[in-house]
Amino acid sequence: MPMSASNSNRFQRRRSETRRALVRAARQILAESGDTTASIRSIAEQADVGLGSFYNHFASKQDLFDAAVADALEEYADAIEGDLRALDDPAERVAGGVRLSTRVAESRPQIVRILCHSGLGRIHAGRGPLMLRAQRDMEQGIASGRFAVADPVIALSALNASLLALLELWFTEPEIDSDQAAGTMAEMLLHMLGLPEDEARDVAQRPLGSAG
Amino acid sequence: MPMSASNSNRFQRRRSETRRALVRAARQILAESGDTTASIRSIAEQADVGLGSFYNHFASKQDLFDAAVADALEEYADAIEGDLRALDDPAERVAGGVRLSTRVAESRPQIVRILCHSGLGRIHAGRGPLMLRAQRDMEQGIASGRFAVADPVIALSALNASLLALLELWFTEPEIDSDQAAGTMAEMLLHMLGLPEDEARDVAQRPLGSAG
Repeated sequence: MPMSASNSNRFQRRRSETRRALVRAARQILAESGDTTASIRSIAEQADVGLGSFYNHFASKQDLFDAAVADALEEYADAIEGDLRALDDPAERVAGGVRLSTRVAESRPQIVRILCHSGLGRIHAGRGPLMLRAQRDMEQGIASGRFAVADPVIALSALNASLLALLELWFTEPEIDSDQAAGTMAEMLLHMLGLPEDEARDVAQRPLGSAG
Repeated sequence: MPMSASNSNRFQRRRSETRRALVRAARQILAESGDTTASIRSIAEQADVGLGSFYNHFASKQDLFDAAVADALEEYADAIEGDLRALDDPAERVAGGVRLSTRVAESRPQIVRILCHSGLGRIHAGRGPLMLRAQRDMEQGIASGRFAVADPVIALSALNASLLALLELWFTEPEIDSDQAAGTMAEMLLHMLGLPEDEARDVAQRPLGSAG
């Protein structure tokens, strides 16, 4: 018997709720300990879904945890998107991305815990919206002469790793002034990308939107 | 009955052999997959030691894996130590540390696999010889006016993360020219630390010893 339209809708809705519940459980595990040794059975229990449902959505536990990291990165990108959209200068966007990161950390600490526990490898492997955005900024900055870098891949790699290190610092040393640390990091990275020191400082200190 | 001196020596030797075997097994696991879900029992089996021996040396699995990362970092430090000792200029030492890293990666790929799989958090937590060395170079560079950085903690954090990102790149994209990539990274980081562009390039291109 073919499903009616409303049955089919309900089925789709339940299906995506199941997926969301599994991703939510995986995000919680990554945020709390990063210890991904739990069995698929216990993750399904934590998500309150049947074990069979797991395999309707994910091929393996690795697959689920990758999806959870991608989900966290997407939420992160959404959080800074609005404030960065208004900026035309790639240098301002790079600085903004760095400086907003600790604000996102304050308002959405789970995301930062996930990123710190997941490590560089998994995050780079993602090639999600954040990575694409950073790549675009880099290319545009080089094309316009705003950035002077010998190799955009190396530069991006240093940039991303430094941003992650800033979040790590925010996470492990909560007593630091995170706005100031983020501003200092942004300034150093802009100078690394070829902006003169005083200009790097100026761009890194411009007022920002209120993301987070 | 008290042990004779030679019995005691033999006991000590066996004891440290057992520890080494466990660390070796843990390093292998970290290098191969970074998947630390194996049971203590199976790690002890892989190391060919009794399960009871495990707890003579390590309080937990986490404790063993931390020791394995520290062991890999120490081997790494030993590998570059000789070439860096001769350098007086902290800028040259920073550049040397970055450039030698990919050479160490070529000659001791297991170390790099371990570092990449272990992530920033675990490595920073280590505060091992590499971290102390980097901290000393940074302080000396700032004191002598060679480096101009607003905050040494932020600068060190960017430096370490970028170095790890370089190794990650070496690991995931084997087709890149790693000597060239390391030189470019060293040049960018020296410029970030305040050296003028041409001087950063000059220092980053000086001949190096033959570590690795």
